[in-house]
Parts: sequence; structure tokens; C-alpha cells
Amino acid sequence: MAEQLAPKIFTLNGATGVPLYVQIKQNLHDLIEAQTLTENQILPSETELGTHYKVSRLTVRQAIVELVREGYLRRERGVGTFVAGPKLTQSLARVGSFSERMREANRQPASRVLSQQVIAAPANIAQQLALEPKSPVHKLERLRLANGEPVMIETAYLPESFFPGLHKIKFAEASLYRTLDEKFNCRIVAADETVEPVLITRQEAKALKTPAGSPGLLVHVKAFDQDGRIVEYSKSIVRGDRSRYMFHIKRTSNSEEYR
Amino acid sequence: MAEQLAPKIFTLNGATGVPLYVQIKQNLHDLIEAQTLTENQILPSETELGTHYKVSRLTVRQAIVELVREGYLRRERGVGTFVAGPKLTQSLARVGSFSERMREANRQPASRVLSQQVIAAPANIAQQLALEPKSPVHKLERLRLANGEPVMIETAYLPESFFPGLHKIKFAEASLYRTLDEKFNCRIVAADETVEPVLITRQEAKALKTPAGSPGLLVHVKAFDQDGRIVEYSKSIVRGDRSRYMFHIKRTSNSEEYR
Repeated sequence: MAEQLAPKIFTLNGATGVPLYVQIKQNLHDLIEAQTLTENQILPSETELGTHYKVSRLTVRQAIVELVREGYLRRERGVGTFVAGPKLTQSLARVGSFSERMREANRQPASRVLSQQVIAAPANIAQQLALEPKSPVHKLERLRLANGEPVMIETAYLPESFFPGLHKIKFAEASLYRTLDEKFNCRIVAADETVEPVLITRQEAKALKTPAGSPGLLVHVKAFDQDGRIVEYSKSIVRGDRSRYMFHIKRTSNSEEYR
Repeated sequence: MAEQLAPKIFTLNGATGVPLYVQIKQNLHDLIEAQTLTENQILPSETELGTHYKVSRLTVRQAIVELVREGYLRRERGVGTFVAGPKLTQSLARVGSFSERMREANRQPASRVLSQQVIAAPANIAQQLALEPKSPVHKLERLRLANGEPVMIETAYLPESFFPGLHKIKFAEASLYRTLDEKFNCRIVAADETVEPVLITRQEAKALKTPAGSPGLLVHVKAFDQDGRIVEYSKSIVRGDRSRYMFHIKRTSNSEEYR
């Protein structure tokens, strides 16, 4: 184990101006990325690591706390610190429902409906859906799970006029996108998404079973159907310690490159 | 102002189980998104807001602290709290250099070179670039700015064998992608990117002029040239309080949808 921790290429360098805990964090992170440290492997104690890196236990702890918050390590109380499994990578290569993305990532998707009702659209939701303010919209709030582990809280809004009766469907079992297709002949063919990092609030933390203040992603999606109508607007809070987003992009234009 | 703060649709609801500070945060956030509260508008004091929402000053403060950390509000010491400008939205619709993305977003791009050298590739970098471990690679670390404001710290690695002499070029002025094109006949035509949320470390915070512990994005890019070679691997830490990523995706397959 000691050998794995310090490949010859790595030496703590007090002269670089990079704090020691950052260097240790970087080293552990690199070893996890390179799979030198493998999933579920137990780390030596903070004292042992301190001896190994020739730093104080507190310095080691700071590196470990951040790696835990970022999802690379996992602590089990009274047992020790382990290398966490790879993050759930959600591909954004094409439009897909949560269920599709989970299956692509070889995880079992599940949903728990937190709330489901028809409401008068608040101003900003109405604007996103190109509706008059206070138009009736379906509001569907779901906790999404992958292999039984909470991954995100998704709040979706859909115009009631497009989908009458949608609020009577049990979305714990049914897929929203599939229902839109089969019951309303509406297929999601494109989406605009924005992604920005946020801190998980105490309330979100409880549902997501992650510490408050840990990093998360706020994802906004505006979905279009085959007729170009905006049929859904959603906001999701995604646990950042367990997931990342991946996409493949191509250069489409060749003019005025790199100017 | 008081009228702007509480549209009739909004009433603090103690019965929902949603903490009051979260409801206040959400209300202010909605008003900013809807541009009811506009850029550079000053907020009433915490005391005034407390009176308005009928909650304690501490409850108001908690909502404001989180909105500041997430970049929606900005505090000026001794002056007050202001509505921040819109976040810098970087479009990922196509591959582009930082300079291109900034121009698309109507910002003036600039770079500061933090370090530039040829190193022996660490194991994980070599793996990403499909090189033998310890192969020589260019390492180029740059602070990227938009309209003079630090946006991200980017560390790029490129195989030395593809680009001899690259380390002699001054990248404070020159664009990396443009240099690869003009001097080495290498055009970036595609990229795989992953995005995950992290907490800004103390060291990064200093360069990015943002508080440590605020939300950021860790972006990994693997770039391919016209011959399909992996020519660059980079890791960037992006300030989350001032930027978001946007992309447009289309459904490409029609088989087995939504199952």
C-alpha cells in the first residue's frame, strides 16, 4: 500500500507554494483516477498517512475531507475510509429520459414522487414555457435513484392544456417521456440544457442523503417535441459527489476559427 | 421595492416543511431570474427584509449568504448587497477555444500564463493522451479572464512529440488552438468533455478571487484533431458563481425510446 501511495514521480514539495494538503489530495486523486487505488480499497489511517507523507495528521485529514465531499473517498463511521466507486457518468450525447441515461450507465433507475399537482404557473415558469402567467401547469417533483441511491431531485413543469389528466398518472412506475409519447403522441426530440454548480442545501441534503454544503449541479432543461413546442421545463438538483456529465462535441463551422 | 419582493403569488408557508430561509432564497432567486430585480439593484437591508418577510434577520441572512455564494447577489463591504449581473453562459454547442466562447458571450477574453514547461507525463495524464508513462508533454497552466475577471484555471497537456518548440510560444497573447493550426497544421475538430461540481480550494480561490468553499466546476477535455489523434488533455477549475454551461441536444435514435 505504501508503495502505491507514493509513486517515485511524486514528492511533496514545500517550495512550490502549493499547500501540502493540496499536494496530498492531488496525489490521492491521481492514484484513484489511474486506478492504482481501486474501488472499496481501505485507506491507511490518518496517522499512518501522516507518517508516510511526513506531515501532520491534520494536514492529511484536510485532504481526505475534501476528497470525501467530492465523492472520491467514502467514510464508514468506526470502520475507515474507502476508495469510492466510479462516479455515475450521465451522457448528454443525445436527449434521453433519466431512465435511459441510467440504463446506458448500467444502473437500475427508480423514482419516488415527492409531489404532483396542477398549479398556476409562477411568472418565471410561465416565461420558460412561453405561457401566460398563472396558466395551469402540471408540477411533478420526483426523487431519482440509481441502484437505490438518491441521485437527484427533479421538478418538472408541463402545460396542463397540452396534457389534460397527466396528474392522475402514477409516475413512481411510469416514465414521463414514455407517457407523453404513448398517451399524448408527443415525442421529446430536442432540449436546451444549462448546468451550473451549487451547494446542496440542508433540505436537499436530507432527501439526497449527502452532507449539506457538498457540491451539486443545478440543471435546467427546456424540452421540445416533434412540432417544436416547448412541452417541459425542469430544474434538477444533482448530487455532485456521485455524478458527472459527459458530452462529445464537434466543430461545425470552419470560418474565423480561433480568432 | 417591497412590492417587487412579494408578488401576490408568494407567501411564506410555515406548514410546508420547507425551511423559511429556503423559501426566501427561492423567492429572491425567482425575482432575479424573472428580472423583476435587475442587475446592480441594491437590496433592502437584512433588517428591512426581515420585517418584510416577517422572519428574523438571521433567517434572511442565511438566504442571502447562499445567493452570494451561488453568484446571484454580490456584497460590497460597507455599502450593501446588490443583484449580480447574469452568469457568463458558455455554449458547448460546438468545439471552441476559450477565446471563441468568450466572444460568443460578448466578453473580452484574456489569459495569464501561470506555468509553462515540458514534463515527464504522470501516469494518469499519459493514459489520457494514449502515451507511454513519462513521455515528454507540454504542460501549460493558464488563468483565463473574461472582461478582466478571473473565470477559470486551465491546465493543458499536449504530447511534446506532436508539437516541438511549443513551450517557447508566449500564450499570454497567442491562442493555443490557433497556434496548433497555424504552426503545426493541427485543427481541433472534436472533444470529449466531462463536467462535475467541486468546491473551490483555498489555493484556487486566491487566483480566482472567489471565496474558498464556493461551488466550482471541474471540466476535463480530451481534444481530437482532424486525423483523430488525441492532441490535448486538459483539466480546468471554473468559478461556478459566475458561470454556467449551456448545450443543445437532439434525439438521434428512435428505437427503444423511454423504456
